[in-house]
Amino acid sequence: MKNKLKGMVYINGEYLKADEAKISAFDRGFIFGDGIYEVVPVINRCLVDRDDFWDRFKLSLNEIQISIPYSKQEFEEILNNVIKLNNLKEGGIYMQVTRGVAPRTFEFVTGLTPSVFIFTYEADIINNQLAQSGIKVVSVEDIRWKRRDIKSISLLAQCYAKNEAVKRGAFEGIMLENGYVSEACSSSVFIIKNNTLITKPLSNEILPGIRRKVLLNLANECGLKVELRNFTIDELYDADEAFISAATLVLLPINNADDKTIKLGKYAQILRQKYVQRLLDESKSTNNIN
Amino acid sequence: MKNKLKGMVYINGEYLKADEAKISAFDRGFIFGDGIYEVVPVINRCLVDRDDFWDRFKLSLNEIQISIPYSKQEFEEILNNVIKLNNLKEGGIYMQVTRGVAPRTFEFVTGLTPSVFIFTYEADIINNQLAQSGIKVVSVEDIRWKRRDIKSISLLAQCYAKNEAVKRGAFEGIMLENGYVSEACSSSVFIIKNNTLITKPLSNEILPGIRRKVLLNLANECGLKVELRNFTIDELYDADEAFISAATLVLLPINNADDKTIKLGKYAQILRQKYVQRLLDESKSTNNIN
Repeated sequence: MKNKLKGMVYINGEYLKADEAKISAFDRGFIFGDGIYEVVPVINRCLVDRDDFWDRFKLSLNEIQISIPYSKQEFEEILNNVIKLNNLKEGGIYMQVTRGVAPRTFEFVTGLTPSVFIFTYEADIINNQLAQSGIKVVSVEDIRWKRRDIKSISLLAQCYAKNEAVKRGAFEGIMLENGYVSEACSSSVFIIKNNTLITKPLSNEILPGIRRKVLLNLANECGLKVELRNFTIDELYDADEAFISAATLVLLPINNADDKTIKLGKYAQILRQKYVQRLLDESKSTNNIN
Repeated sequence: MKNKLKGMVYINGEYLKADEAKISAFDRGFIFGDGIYEVVPVINRCLVDRDDFWDRFKLSLNEIQISIPYSKQEFEEILNNVIKLNNLKEGGIYMQVTRGVAPRTFEFVTGLTPSVFIFTYEADIINNQLAQSGIKVVSVEDIRWKRRDIKSISLLAQCYAKNEAVKRGAFEGIMLENGYVSEACSSSVFIIKNNTLITKPLSNEILPGIRRKVLLNLANECGLKVELRNFTIDELYDADEAFISAATLVLLPINNADDKTIKLGKYAQILRQKYVQRLLDESKSTNNIN
């Protein structure tokens, strides 16, 4: 059964089988999409890029005024427990915090106990076949809300756009707004032209991607200039290279956009190699307790 | 306890106490806000405005490709059961349909069993004190997605805006976009100027309000002209009358917007009286089986 739930999850203080994990139907996550999420990559059974996720997690929670009653250390302990329970070697760990359970009323009800839900999934991060072959993308309209810097679970716009892209045979949808590329449905977008890495600057219009941030730092090491500016879909078609980044994809090069071929190039390969090495190093560092 | 859950609900085939109603944590409603909802007013223990809700319900479901395995008659039977179980005389019945339970992936997973959740709440529809006093509103930014014609449960933008309005002491927030009034956080907005009722025309930018539709028809009976066009917040400040409409509010006049006084006038009262009479008549008609 393709839609069967697998593994063990953490939900509101309990470790349960995935198909036994329940929440109240009055949880504001279910009624309003009133919550946020994060995904952290796991390599060699260890959380990686682990210094950044907590900051973004807290940023999202602060923006919608949910306070989470855990320290980073306590939270990482739970994450590590779930990784162990699932014997997860490589993949991702997903965590979601919603405002909690209350009779339905739009404003942010205070004094609730936030609901916390955590699960893992397996993924080939290091040896992802798509890193060699590249991916096909299509452009779709960006119909999202205006606070995309908040990693909210109100994701119907993203689901809608991704569904459109997948129906058209693509791996990912490149979202367009006012003539410019804003972001992909569930990843950040980059192009390279004349040895310059170009991506949209941070604002409320996009998520402050953790992979995006690291890649911008690695770009300098590769001799790439960096330009933070809006770019059009035509610039993507004409780019020397183009790629997306996301938690467990790291970096995947684009080989086709709206049925136009895009060459695979050296920079995407080098950046990915450097990034993967960084994750491997982190997984072996003494900071990682697993 | 102000946040205590009360009454009986329907959830996925079962009638349960509100605090025992659970869904899977992998329900796409909880993970993605991937679902839609409706609210139907209840007067004299009967569903009212009942011819319209089903059309809008199906419209929303169709737009996001969820098929609901009920006929209107079957669904109304469940709604009437929940009304009876709660001995609800006057108020609203809320119903929510989500795509169902599956491992997390953005695109619209097919072949799932939709989750159905229904609960009721008490409200004074006919003798709402606010219909006499009027309500205070404040303007807030419209940060919602671009498919507001779909009555989706991905509602964080609305919660965010309503919270802002409530914090500033208002009953409702009037959402502004590109200099114009788009909609209120959870209601439609109207102004009257020189015997003309003005409200925004239907498009993807607003919900096709059922109360809005009925009020536009009743306006003619009251000798009002109707103009479907965008209007600014300044026009609302300067209006002869202004009001909002929503399922269990019917119509509530605005007496204050951004600390500017707005006069209460005859048209809002007449329109509300006519609407309430229509609902009372419907509740006594032979079509209503309760």
